[in-house]
Amino acid sequence: MIALAISIGTFEIPALFWSPRISKLSAHIHLNQCRLHPSICRFDAIGLTMKNFQGAYRLWKHSFDHPTNRRLLFNFRSSFSGLTNNLTRMSGRNAFYHNQIVPECNSFLRSYGRGLVAAFCKYENNCFQIHYRNLTSMASTPTRNKSFSVINSDDINYFKNILGDKGVAQEEEKLEDANMDWMRKYKGSSKLMLQPRSTQEVSQILEYCNSRYLAVVPQGGNTGLVGGSVPVFDEVIVNMSAMNNILSFDKVSGVLVCEAGCILENLMSFLDNEGFIMPLDLGAKGSCQIGGNVSTNAGGLRLVRYGSLHGSVLGLEAVLANGTVLDMLGTLRKDNTGYDLKHLFIGSEGSLGIITKVSILTPPKLSSINVAFLACEDYTSCQKLLFEARRKLGEILSAFEFLDINAMDLVLKHLDGLRNPLPSSKHNFYVLIETTGSIQSHDNEKLEAFLVQSVESGLVTDGVLAQDINQASAFWQIREGLPEALMKAGAVYKYDLSIPLEWMYDLVEEMRNRLGTSANVVAYGHLGDSNLHLNISTPLYDKNVLSKIEPFVYDWTSKHRGSISAEHGLGSMKANKIHYSKSAETVELMWCIKRLLDPKGILNPYKVLPTSLSSWSK
Amino acid sequence: MIALAISIGTFEIPALFWSPRISKLSAHIHLNQCRLHPSICRFDAIGLTMKNFQGAYRLWKHSFDHPTNRRLLFNFRSSFSGLTNNLTRMSGRNAFYHNQIVPECNSFLRSYGRGLVAAFCKYENNCFQIHYRNLTSMASTPTRNKSFSVINSDDINYFKNILGDKGVAQEEEKLEDANMDWMRKYKGSSKLMLQPRSTQEVSQILEYCNSRYLAVVPQGGNTGLVGGSVPVFDEVIVNMSAMNNILSFDKVSGVLVCEAGCILENLMSFLDNEGFIMPLDLGAKGSCQIGGNVSTNAGGLRLVRYGSLHGSVLGLEAVLANGTVLDMLGTLRKDNTGYDLKHLFIGSEGSLGIITKVSILTPPKLSSINVAFLACEDYTSCQKLLFEARRKLGEILSAFEFLDINAMDLVLKHLDGLRNPLPSSKHNFYVLIETTGSIQSHDNEKLEAFLVQSVESGLVTDGVLAQDINQASAFWQIREGLPEALMKAGAVYKYDLSIPLEWMYDLVEEMRNRLGTSANVVAYGHLGDSNLHLNISTPLYDKNVLSKIEPFVYDWTSKHRGSISAEHGLGSMKANKIHYSKSAETVELMWCIKRLLDPKGILNPYKVLPTSLSSWSK
Repeated sequence: MIALAISIGTFEIPALFWSPRISKLSAHIHLNQCRLHPSICRFDAIGLTMKNFQGAYRLWKHSFDHPTNRRLLFNFRSSFSGLTNNLTRMSGRNAFYHNQIVPECNSFLRSYGRGLVAAFCKYENNCFQIHYRNLTSMASTPTRNKSFSVINSDDINYFKNILGDKGVAQEEEKLEDANMDWMRKYKGSSKLMLQPRSTQEVSQILEYCNSRYLAVVPQGGNTGLVGGSVPVFDEVIVNMSAMNNILSFDKVSGVLVCEAGCILENLMSFLDNEGFIMPLDLGAKGSCQIGGNVSTNAGGLRLVRYGSLHGSVLGLEAVLANGTVLDMLGTLRKDNTGYDLKHLFIGSEGSLGIITKVSILTPPKLSSINVAFLACEDYTSCQKLLFEARRKLGEILSAFEFLDINAMDLVLKHLDGLRNPLPSSKHNFYVLIETTGSIQSHDNEKLEAFLVQSVESGLVTDGVLAQDINQASAFWQIREGLPEALMKAGAVYKYDLSIPLEWMYDLVEEMRNRLGTSANVVAYGHLGDSNLHLNISTPLYDKNVLSKIEPFVYDWTSKHRGSISAEHGLGSMKANKIHYSKSAETVELMWCIKRLLDPKGILNPYKVLPTSLSSWSK
Repeated sequence: MIALAISIGTFEIPALFWSPRISKLSAHIHLNQCRLHPSICRFDAIGLTMKNFQGAYRLWKHSFDHPTNRRLLFNFRSSFSGLTNNLTRMSGRNAFYHNQIVPECNSFLRSYGRGLVAAFCKYENNCFQIHYRNLTSMASTPTRNKSFSVINSDDINYFKNILGDKGVAQEEEKLEDANMDWMRKYKGSSKLMLQPRSTQEVSQILEYCNSRYLAVVPQGGNTGLVGGSVPVFDEVIVNMSAMNNILSFDKVSGVLVCEAGCILENLMSFLDNEGFIMPLDLGAKGSCQIGGNVSTNAGGLRLVRYGSLHGSVLGLEAVLANGTVLDMLGTLRKDNTGYDLKHLFIGSEGSLGIITKVSILTPPKLSSINVAFLACEDYTSCQKLLFEARRKLGEILSAFEFLDINAMDLVLKHLDGLRNPLPSSKHNFYVLIETTGSIQSHDNEKLEAFLVQSVESGLVTDGVLAQDINQASAFWQIREGLPEALMKAGAVYKYDLSIPLEWMYDLVEEMRNRLGTSANVVAYGHLGDSNLHLNISTPLYDKNVLSKIEPFVYDWTSKHRGSISAEHGLGSMKANKIHYSKSAETVELMWCIKRLLDPKGILNPYKVLPTSLSSWSK
């Protein structure tokens, strides 16, 4: 009998959890690699629990290392809660789990849970102090639409009647979190949060709200960046967390059907056991929900390989403002029978209906992953490198990210423990390339040939190929640590832009010319998707700097047929800026569709469309 | 100097075309492989011309070999016309082409053109005699909507004023082709065909038609299978063929922007020279236009690899019924600024607006292609094989087609020159697997390992891997020859269904039980996309057989959450059958959107939506 040895980086799991009683499950669990030893894999429920435990533990550790990152604390909390739920579920199915594992796990979790709550409170305050550093584009404050009613006791009674007491939250504590986004940038004043457990309940809620002119804000994991999922005034919050069941999975076609409140990371864990992956991956995966992902058309890290949700989502169930349930929950890749209405709901940020169920095509999990970190002398070389990568790495290319020298300097200066993988000399641009395929030796050979050729042709001036998972992870940390480094550097003006590749970096250079020495212009992003994260960093907030950035940055993006929101959506932050990316005729048609589907405008008001258009009246 | 040697199978191109004057372009052109020798590739225009020539010649040859296939003759005519256009364009750009190549090509084409016209007339008649064999689901005839006006001489004058004489066709000969689909199954009686050359002209046409209550049918290559692109009564035909310019191509991002009238095969030829491919491929590529492809959300052979057009199309320009131009022609993979309205137009079959321009993401061309032809004993094995293929061939799988024993018997019986690649014994199911990747040796290794394992595990009982392009082509001919074999076998009832994989073949077996010996039930299709082509073959048309098939086949499909039109659309053939695949609420919302975008209902009336809903009045 081999003892159960588990290591998370340099951490050891406390002995309490891994008592001799379960050590008969001989296994090495490489947590950093997120892979379970085959001998344990057949214990599905344990595998899933451990997976969740990994996620929770990793995030918890990270949240201590990076105390200002509030999203990580949110992520942790969700993972932790997912773990507890799974333990509870398991206990109902198997006596062994019920009698032996669950009590110990629960005891462990309770003890750690207390530590967590303390950590959470401590850093909550820390976060609050820094949130005003996120300065860009605060929404221009709309006025409350007087057509909307105010909640009264009859309404509360009605909802309690439908949902029971558990589904109706009025406690200040619960509402505080739901009224505010994780950045603490947007804050509403809702007095009521509803948590439906079925489509039927969502339908009853909306039918009632519509008849009573009660405005509604649909809410998933509340991880958005543009204020789309929090109330602006006193809208009723319809939180989807309680609808978190996986309904079916077809291993042959790879089609997953689930409820909207499923947390992305839980779906990933579930699929991992089945040999599949989700076609999207986000930093917020520990908290965000699939319904919210679909409603905001979330992009993320896998888009360059698996495309957008418009391609992956096969079907939806959505409830309209008047309570009508639209069953479009097909599981077919091909269905040409009339207008494909599900696309209206993908990316409409809950303003046309509430998504209740999702059917999504998931790709098979591939075992070979490579990461290379390269240097280029100029932006033209980065572009050419992307061109060559598409050609030479064709079917295995899974990420193509870039950062410029300012970004590298910033991350090295502000994040402890990170080092430049190419320290020999300074380079103007860095590119991170990831490949994913089914046979390691094939992928290595392709990537190495590509790299040799890129160096020989002068496109790449220096580079390194990750030799193990830790090195790969270190490369990714540079790219993923950038938002945090920017927060630490002072005030930051953030723009999420999509611009045709050819011109993308011209904007960065023009911005540097405009701002001179008054600000540090930092550029990075998903080059493979033409997605630029333009960040302008200053020691302190400066109105003069802002006036030089806006509206210039929007004008410039618009002139070059770019998008002012590549992946974050419009929410309340950019609702009034839609005209920079969409023609007047298109916005008008959007507005007509909004009126058609939600004549009273109760769904997620003051968002997506310009407030000037949204002046509905009774 | 090496003489220019060109061979198409066993054919030699007449010496007239390949005079000594151009033989200095040393090249071997392997037409069957559709690949040009590098020494000739840099001559873009010549390359393109030769590509088109290949297509035209190949189709012409094929149309003589298969005289009953009217679509091939249509394809040929379009390719031929594309070639002439390209020659004309080239001549304006380069003196060498203008003075030397063009006159010779033109002379050659004229001479062959005459042969073609003769061939066309001869087989036209032949086709006419067989068209009644396509029996399934003729549209129930609607009555003409009396709200619509009838064309008068003022209208004609107005259109001539906008479009010039060339853009206004009233000649019976031209209208005959445009009034009828290629199967001769649907026939309208339009007296007017307009051929706009710009978005502005389309806008002027629609604005006028809308004000005059003139119904309009948008038309691309007219290759549809459900009567969507021909008039039902006297609708004005707006044919998009004259808008056939490629507007831009970005070699780094792979984004192609072009006008709606571009023929798919011309786009493929253009991209081939740039090292890219279109994300869709269809039998009708020689005639169909990209605007029509997008309007019908065409599926085809590459969907299993590159997904549907909802994922590939990045932007559209469309003109609404009232003449409003919607500019949604973005070229960005990511753009989350409001509702993504382009998806409304993808698959709406011209009933919401006329698509005038398309922006589409094209994948890089990969050089290694393998084809395997395998036998399975039962349908469960086919499913398991697909599951394994997705896993083992992951990133290189590009097609997974299947046919059953009845299909194989039929194709061998009716098509000369085809033989069973696995003749040693009879098998119940055959599977064709194609892989596409960037390095031949890697793909071979993956495919061979997959095949060895599949044989060892008993999933595959026999199989063969194509050793060269001719063998690969022979395997594909079996799959692609099925529609022709069915036509030769007698009357055929055709159904294009999408059904969850698990149950797909149950329908075939139930149908065999229902029909007994009265009909031959033949099944084949894109198993990788859950797309079943169910064909029921009888020696003669038999009402009793039809009554046993319909509505049973639609009921069954609906009960199993399938689609009654996987890739062909609804058109006028299945407009009244939409409820088998879409819920009443969804159809109602479609109808509301139709009324919103086209309040007078002038765009492609009597199609897509049930005629009962379309009773607009003045």
